[in-house]
Amino acid sequence: VPKLNPNWTNTPTIVALVGLPARGKTYIGNRLSRYLNWVGTNCRVFNVGSYRRKESTVTHTSNFFDNNNKEAMEQRLRWRKAALKDIQRWFHEDDGQVAIYDATNVERSARQFLWEFAEKHGFKLFFIESECNDPEVVNNTVREVKLHGPDYISVDKDKAEKDFNERIKKYTQVYQPMNRDDDSHCSFIKLIDVGKSYIVHNVSGHVQSRMVYFLMNLRVRTRSIYLCRHGESEMNVSGRIGGDSNLSPQGRQFAQNLGDYVEKIRKDVPGRFHVWTSALKRTQETATIADLHYEPWKALNEIDAGVCEGLTYTEIKEKYPNEYNMRQNNKYYYRYPMGESYYDLVVRLEPVIMELERSESAFVVCHQAVVRCLMAYFQNLPVDTLPFLKVPLHTVIKMTQHAHSCEVELIPLGPKGVDTHQPLTPCSHISSIDNNEK
Amino acid sequence: VPKLNPNWTNTPTIVALVGLPARGKTYIGNRLSRYLNWVGTNCRVFNVGSYRRKESTVTHTSNFFDNNNKEAMEQRLRWRKAALKDIQRWFHEDDGQVAIYDATNVERSARQFLWEFAEKHGFKLFFIESECNDPEVVNNTVREVKLHGPDYISVDKDKAEKDFNERIKKYTQVYQPMNRDDDSHCSFIKLIDVGKSYIVHNVSGHVQSRMVYFLMNLRVRTRSIYLCRHGESEMNVSGRIGGDSNLSPQGRQFAQNLGDYVEKIRKDVPGRFHVWTSALKRTQETATIADLHYEPWKALNEIDAGVCEGLTYTEIKEKYPNEYNMRQNNKYYYRYPMGESYYDLVVRLEPVIMELERSESAFVVCHQAVVRCLMAYFQNLPVDTLPFLKVPLHTVIKMTQHAHSCEVELIPLGPKGVDTHQPLTPCSHISSIDNNEK
Ligand SMILES: Nc1ncnc2c1ncn2[C@@H]1O[C@H](COP(=O)(O)OP(=O)(O)OP(=O)(O)O)[C@@H](O)[C@H]1O
Ligand SMILES: Nc1ncnc2c1ncn2[C@@H]1O[C@H](COP(=O)(O)OP(=O)(O)OP(=O)(O)O)[C@@H](O)[C@H]1O
Ligand SMILES: [Mg+2]
Ligand SMILES: [Mg+2]
Repeated sequence: VPKLNPNWTNTPTIVALVGLPARGKTYIGNRLSRYLNWVGTNCRVFNVGSYRRKESTVTHTSNFFDNNNKEAMEQRLRWRKAALKDIQRWFHEDDGQVAIYDATNVERSARQFLWEFAEKHGFKLFFIESECNDPEVVNNTVREVKLHGPDYISVDKDKAEKDFNERIKKYTQVYQPMNRDDDSHCSFIKLIDVGKSYIVHNVSGHVQSRMVYFLMNLRVRTRSIYLCRHGESEMNVSGRIGGDSNLSPQGRQFAQNLGDYVEKIRKDVPGRFHVWTSALKRTQETATIADLHYEPWKALNEIDAGVCEGLTYTEIKEKYPNEYNMRQNNKYYYRYPMGESYYDLVVRLEPVIMELERSESAFVVCHQAVVRCLMAYFQNLPVDTLPFLKVPLHTVIKMTQHAHSCEVELIPLGPKGVDTHQPLTPCSHISSIDNNEK
Repeated sequence: VPKLNPNWTNTPTIVALVGLPARGKTYIGNRLSRYLNWVGTNCRVFNVGSYRRKESTVTHTSNFFDNNNKEAMEQRLRWRKAALKDIQRWFHEDDGQVAIYDATNVERSARQFLWEFAEKHGFKLFFIESECNDPEVVNNTVREVKLHGPDYISVDKDKAEKDFNERIKKYTQVYQPMNRDDDSHCSFIKLIDVGKSYIVHNVSGHVQSRMVYFLMNLRVRTRSIYLCRHGESEMNVSGRIGGDSNLSPQGRQFAQNLGDYVEKIRKDVPGRFHVWTSALKRTQETATIADLHYEPWKALNEIDAGVCEGLTYTEIKEKYPNEYNMRQNNKYYYRYPMGESYYDLVVRLEPVIMELERSESAFVVCHQAVVRCLMAYFQNLPVDTLPFLKVPLHTVIKMTQHAHSCEVELIPLGPKGVDTHQPLTPCSHISSIDNNEK
C-alpha cells in the first residue's frame, strides 16, 4: 500500500487533546481523524468519556468530576489507562499510526503522565489544546451539543445545563493551560478563541507539521458545499472514458438548469460564493452556459486513465484484459499505466480539501471520480467504498457540515443523462460515519 | 497567465518584517519572496536599508540609529516613505501582488504608521516578527553576516562588531515586541528562537495562510541538496519523450557510478539521508542499481506530454506542427493537449519543495523537467529561463544553500549519455539571483 508522502513517519504518534469541557476537543479530534484517514494515515480516536460510559451505567453528575472525590478519581485513572492500553495494542497489532487521545488533560500532571507513557514506549506525543475565553461560544456549545449528549438523556434541560456548567467549574479549578515556559519540552499547538490565534511549539516531523497546517485551516460554522459533475459530454454519450470533449445537447440543457439553480441558492450563501471547475472543456463549458463566474483548477481534473483514455470499457477489456481485472480487484489503489489511481487522485485533491475546509461555501463542478473522492472525505467513508459511490449526471450534491455529522442531499436537475456508473459490489451505500461520542 | 490556485487573492498584500537587527529579517524576506515568485505570485522585497545606502554615501555608525538623533530620525522616516511609495507604484503599475517591506519596525508607532497606510490604500497587511533570545545565535549572525555587509566595508572587524552591537542596543531600547493583546487588530506571525515556537494571530485569507505554512517549514542551517536525472533510458536512446521505459546499458552503468558516489558523500551528511525517486521505472531502476534505500513519489514524475508521449521531436513537428510552435513560443505556460505545462509541474512540485525546505538533506532522482523546476527554485531563477536550463544526463547537481546565496556544483559521473537538451534561446545561464541587500 503506497503512502501519501514518503515522509509520513513510521513512528506512531499519540495526539492528546487538552481543554475544558465544551471546547470542541471531540470536534477537533474527529475532523483531524477524518482528514488523516482520507490522506492514507491510519488514525483512530480513543475517547476516554466513552470508556466511562461503557463501563458504568449510572449517570455521572458534576460531583463525579471533583478532584476531591477520591473514588471517582481512581475510576477515572483506570479509564485513562484502559484507553492508553488500547492505543498501545492498536499501534502494535493493527498498524495504527496516529491515535487521538480524547480527554480533558487539563492538569499538567495528567499531561506528564502521558509524556512518560509515550517516552517509555517510543511513541511521539503531540498536544492540541483548545482554549476559549468567549462565554457566549461556550454557552452555545453547551446548549446546542452537550445537553443532547449521552450524559443527559432524559434529564431536564435546565437541570442539565446547570450540571454541565458545574462540571466545567470543577475542571476550571484545576486547569493549567499549556505555555511555552512550563511545557517547553512538549510539542503542542494551542488553538485560541476558535481560530483567532495559535501558539505552536516544538513541532517535530512531517505528520505534526501537516496537522498544524490542517488545524489552522479548520473552520467551525455550519455551511454547505455543492458538488456536481459537468453536463453530459459527447464522450459520455459514446461510452468512452476520459478525453476532453464538449457537452452533448443534454449536457447543455443541464448547464442551463444549473444556472437557474445557482441563482436560486446564491442569495442564501454568506460571504463570497466560489465556483471552481476543472481545467477540462466539459466543466468549463458547463459553468459558462450556467453563466457562473468560475475559476478553473487543474487539481480538479478527472482521474487520468493513461493508456485507456478515450476507450470504452469493452475496448479496455479486449485490449488490456489484465489491466481491467487488476482494476476490478483493487479499484482504489490500481493505477492505469501512465495514468492515475484513485489514491493518486486523493493526493492531488488535498489542496482542494484544504481550501474547502477554509471556505464559507463553494460550488465545485468536476468529474465522477473527483466527486467520489470529495464525498468520501466529507462523509468519512472508508477508502474501499470510495470508487463505487454513485454519482449520477445532472445532479447537484449538497453537503451540509454540522458539528458531528454531514448531511447529504441529492438534487436532480435533469434532463436525464447516460448512466456512467460501473457497479462492482452491490453495496455502495452513502451514509455518514462519524467517529464520536455522541 | 494562469494562477497557482484560484484563491490567491487579488488584493495586494504588504508583508512587513519586524525585529531587532541580525534577527534574520532579510533572510526570511528573501526566502519568502523566492517561494512566492516560484509558485507564480509576483513578489518583491523593498529593503529600507538599501534606500539609506543608496542615498547617502557616508557610513552610518550606531549613533545614526539613536532615536534622540532628530536629524537622522527625519531622514529615516523619509526612506521609509520612499519605500512605501515605491510599493504603491509597483502594485498599481506592475501588477505587484506581495511586497515585502524589509525594515526593523520595532516600535508600535512604526507599525501603526504602516497599518494606516495599508488601510488608506486598501492593501492587506501582514507582519512577520522574528524574535531571538539566544545571544549565541545573534552573535554568530553578526560575525558571519553583518561584519561582511555593506555598512562595514573596510572597517576593522573588532570595531565593526562593537558598533553593530551598539546599533542593536539602540533598537532594543525602543523595541516593543508584538503580542496578541496590544496588536490584536493586526495579522501577524511571530517566529521565536529560530523555529522553536510560533505565535500566529488573525490570519486572513489564502496567501497569508500559505505564507504561515511556508515559514513554519523554513530552516536555517547550511545544507546540500542533490539532484540527478535517472540513468539514460531506452527511450532517451531512441529519441522519444516520456513513456515508462527501462534503462539502457549506459544508464545502468551510471546507476553503478551513482551508488559509489552516494556511498562516498553519505558519511558527511547529518541526520537521515532521504532518497526520493519518481514513480516511473527509470528512476526507481536507477536507485535500485545504486543500492539506495529510496521512496518513490509520484509528484516527481516527468512532465506529462499528453498526446505527444512516446513521440520523437521530429514526429511531434510533423504530427502536431501547431502544438510544436506554440510550445516554442511559450514553453513555460504551454500545456500539452491532455498533458501538463511546466507551470503545472511547479504546482505539482510544491509539496516536494516544502519537504526539501524542511529536510536536513536529500537526494532526488528524477527527470529533466523536474530538475529544471527544482533548480529554478533554489537559484531563484525567472520562470521564462526555467524550461531551457541545461541538465545533462549522468550528472549530479549539488546545491548548497547558504544564508544569502545558493552554490551549484555539477558533478559528471559518466558514462556519456545522449544529449536530450532542446535549446531555443542561446542563454541558458545558471546563476544565483538573490534579491537582497548584501
Ligand atoms: N476551537 C474551538 N474552540 C471552541 N469551540 C469549538 C472549537 N471547535 C469547535 N468548537 C465547538 O465545539 C462544539 C463541539 O463540542 P465538543 O463536543 O467537541 O466539545 P468537547 O471539548 O469534546 O467537550 P467534552 O469535554 O464535554 O467532551 C462544536 O459544536 C463547535 O461549535
Ligand atoms: N528566524 C530567525 N531567527 C534568528 N536568526 C535567523 C532566523 N532566520 C535566519 N536567521 C539568521 O540570520 C542571518 C541573516 O541575517 P539578516 O541579514 O537576515 O538579519 P536582519 O534581521 O535582516 O538584520 P538587519 O536588521 O541588520 O538588516 C542568517 O545567516 C541566519 O542564520
Ligand atoms: Mg469531548
Ligand atoms: Mg536586513
